[in-house]
Amino acid sequence: MRTVNIGICGFGTVGSGTFAVLNRNRELIRARSGCDIRVAQLAARRQILSSNLDSVSVIRDIFQVVENPGIDVVVELIGGTTTARELVMKAISRGKHVVTANKALIAVHGNEIFAAARDHQVIVAYEAAVAGGIPIIKSLREGLGANRIEWLAGIINGTGNFILTAMQEEGRKFDEVLRQAQALGYAEADPAFDVEGIDAAHKLVILASLAFGIPLQFDRVFTEGISAIELQDMEFARELGYRIKHLGIARETESGVELRVHPTLIPDTSLIAEVDGVMNAVMVKGDAAGPTLYYGAGAGAEATASAVVADIIDVSRSLNCSPEARVPFLAFSDASFNGKPVLAIEDVETAYYLRMQVLDRPGVLSQIASIMSDRGISIEAIIQKQPRPGENHVALIMMTNRAREAELMAAVKQIEKLDSQAGKIIQLRVETLDR
Amino acid sequence: MRTVNIGICGFGTVGSGTFAVLNRNRELIRARSGCDIRVAQLAARRQILSSNLDSVSVIRDIFQVVENPGIDVVVELIGGTTTARELVMKAISRGKHVVTANKALIAVHGNEIFAAARDHQVIVAYEAAVAGGIPIIKSLREGLGANRIEWLAGIINGTGNFILTAMQEEGRKFDEVLRQAQALGYAEADPAFDVEGIDAAHKLVILASLAFGIPLQFDRVFTEGISAIELQDMEFARELGYRIKHLGIARETESGVELRVHPTLIPDTSLIAEVDGVMNAVMVKGDAAGPTLYYGAGAGAEATASAVVADIIDVSRSLNCSPEARVPFLAFSDASFNGKPVLAIEDVETAYYLRMQVLDRPGVLSQIASIMSDRGISIEAIIQKQPRPGENHVALIMMTNRAREAELMAAVKQIEKLDSQAGKIIQLRVETLDR
Repeated sequence: MRTVNIGICGFGTVGSGTFAVLNRNRELIRARSGCDIRVAQLAARRQILSSNLDSVSVIRDIFQVVENPGIDVVVELIGGTTTARELVMKAISRGKHVVTANKALIAVHGNEIFAAARDHQVIVAYEAAVAGGIPIIKSLREGLGANRIEWLAGIINGTGNFILTAMQEEGRKFDEVLRQAQALGYAEADPAFDVEGIDAAHKLVILASLAFGIPLQFDRVFTEGISAIELQDMEFARELGYRIKHLGIARETESGVELRVHPTLIPDTSLIAEVDGVMNAVMVKGDAAGPTLYYGAGAGAEATASAVVADIIDVSRSLNCSPEARVPFLAFSDASFNGKPVLAIEDVETAYYLRMQVLDRPGVLSQIASIMSDRGISIEAIIQKQPRPGENHVALIMMTNRAREAELMAAVKQIEKLDSQAGKIIQLRVETLDR
Repeated sequence: MRTVNIGICGFGTVGSGTFAVLNRNRELIRARSGCDIRVAQLAARRQILSSNLDSVSVIRDIFQVVENPGIDVVVELIGGTTTARELVMKAISRGKHVVTANKALIAVHGNEIFAAARDHQVIVAYEAAVAGGIPIIKSLREGLGANRIEWLAGIINGTGNFILTAMQEEGRKFDEVLRQAQALGYAEADPAFDVEGIDAAHKLVILASLAFGIPLQFDRVFTEGISAIELQDMEFARELGYRIKHLGIARETESGVELRVHPTLIPDTSLIAEVDGVMNAVMVKGDAAGPTLYYGAGAGAEATASAVVADIIDVSRSLNCSPEARVPFLAFSDASFNGKPVLAIEDVETAYYLRMQVLDRPGVLSQIASIMSDRGISIEAIIQKQPRPGENHVALIMMTNRAREAELMAAVKQIEKLDSQAGKIIQLRVETLDR
């Protein structure tokens, strides 16, 4: 049996999870992979206490792993995009295969990294970069390989979904749930990465490349966070038969590719609307397979390790295959990259939920409806609440049909100027996920 | 670019779907696979009307495909286990790779087929055999390769799920919905394969082998159909917070492997309880990844073709790889097959839903409870209905804790002998799917 020597760089949550899984399931992994996968070297800044370190060379300098001629596969688990990038590029230049869990690295520097890997004929595997233990990269890149992917939509940030679920189910406000998520260790002290959608944008960029064959274009993702979501909008959404989820959405249209992360109303009859707490799920619409959905833990030491080790097994198995036999890094051969542009958010077509504060008097609704209709926007549903005692304004909730965002924004601006409408209009995008 | 010549045997639903997908997505498949995948020959009993047949040799004798030296991959889509077996064994002996969508063939003759394929160093791929367009074989065999799989549970027969969903949502009886399913073309004229769980058993046997590394053992699956499900049990289940689904369940325990297909009460908070209509889903519990779920269309021309073509791409890509670099047919190398026996249903441990008809008088419940407790079975929940006017008996619904099936059966027999209990006790298994 062939021995494959791997070097693990980084021994934080994912690093120690990976080491634990490789040790615990050693026999089983041997039986599945046909290789003896051995952690030959492990580099970490802190001291490692483990009873399974007998034959492992533990060092402090991650770059020694890259220079070690005995290492076949470098596993990058340090995170970040500066040192990690340097490490991965060095590993590639030394002819090492790379496994990484680093979504930011792939989303931001993936084009450069894959080009170098191609030149040096090595594999860079990154299943763990998106949705933790869910084998979504493999499913998109291989399992759905026969399909033209029409769109995908994912709950790909567990912290954000935990917050929205707690708000929805317990009627608690955003700030309060965020503090709880931080106390539980789900959210970082600086929660922007999670709640502003940056983390989800990293993952969406990767999924969209795999789906549509476009290069990675992180700077082109439209991102809107969940910090402004109010409980009353969750309640109105529920009345209309919807739930609010923070989705990453990618869709190929005639004119380009949509890449957007934002709070979204989705029908409560859709399976993905039932994905609660820290769980992740990705829904993919293929022209042949139809809609499929992949659900599981998106983070955590062992869920992420599950994906890292699956990649290690794949790489180990195919070490002696010719590069032509490998699945292309981003699913498509470079030569066939899709040249479609990423659409500006103004050019995206979607339906909208609007909440206005309008004067409770005759004629107001028809005034608003006529502004909408002048711009070709039709109204799908309306909820108008009774005014509270002593108040002149009432909440008017409106669901529109699909329209170009630029048209909708223009209509909203026009309505905001009416005397009969007070303050800013709340706007949330709506997706039915059925076409 | 390498050309790969495939021969399609069978041009029914799946065959014509496969041909359509290969034609429609030709460019995209070329960009993903790096190969020019060409349908060189097509064998079908009936005449084929298609505008895309220019370069395809259309014949009537499927065995000519196997003998054609120009064919690299034989795609078996004729179904059944006699001619299909002969065809596949001949293809293997001629050194052809095989792609098949035939679950019965793999479940019943897979051990023999894979042994022959090993001897002749060819691939036999069968993603389409389980759950149509959902890449569940790949997910289990590769995506979750790092995990010790603890259990899996699947809705893997769309017809059965369509019937149960319609009964649940529309309050219609089994027979009536079955007739509708037949009229819609979901169920065969002889519906036994679907509603008695044979079809699900075929698929479960395959999934269990992949999960636990046991040989295929179709004759060891316990199978119970859905034809006896009554609407009132669906209603009581709902009161208790459960839904009834026809599940295929496989679990590895200390003493052996459970392999069973039966109607099952599952908590309505579980995502798989929300899988309705003809859709399929498989939930897999891995020791590292935790629970993951895979959802999609389990049947239909193009959903199944999606899996067939994914296999064709995989095989085409790795034609020149050494056999050692291939994923083992049943996930594990033969030498490492798990020797655990499949447990008899009497030795399976599960919770139960029981519906009795008992006399409405003091002492009856305590009599029943004491029979249960003597056998170590504890009661988790009870619903007792008011008697209808003029009736002496009332419905008594009981949920037990997990117990060995043999103990439960003995207790049920004993209770059925009581004067205070009338008729047969309805028994349904309960799974919480949380451990």
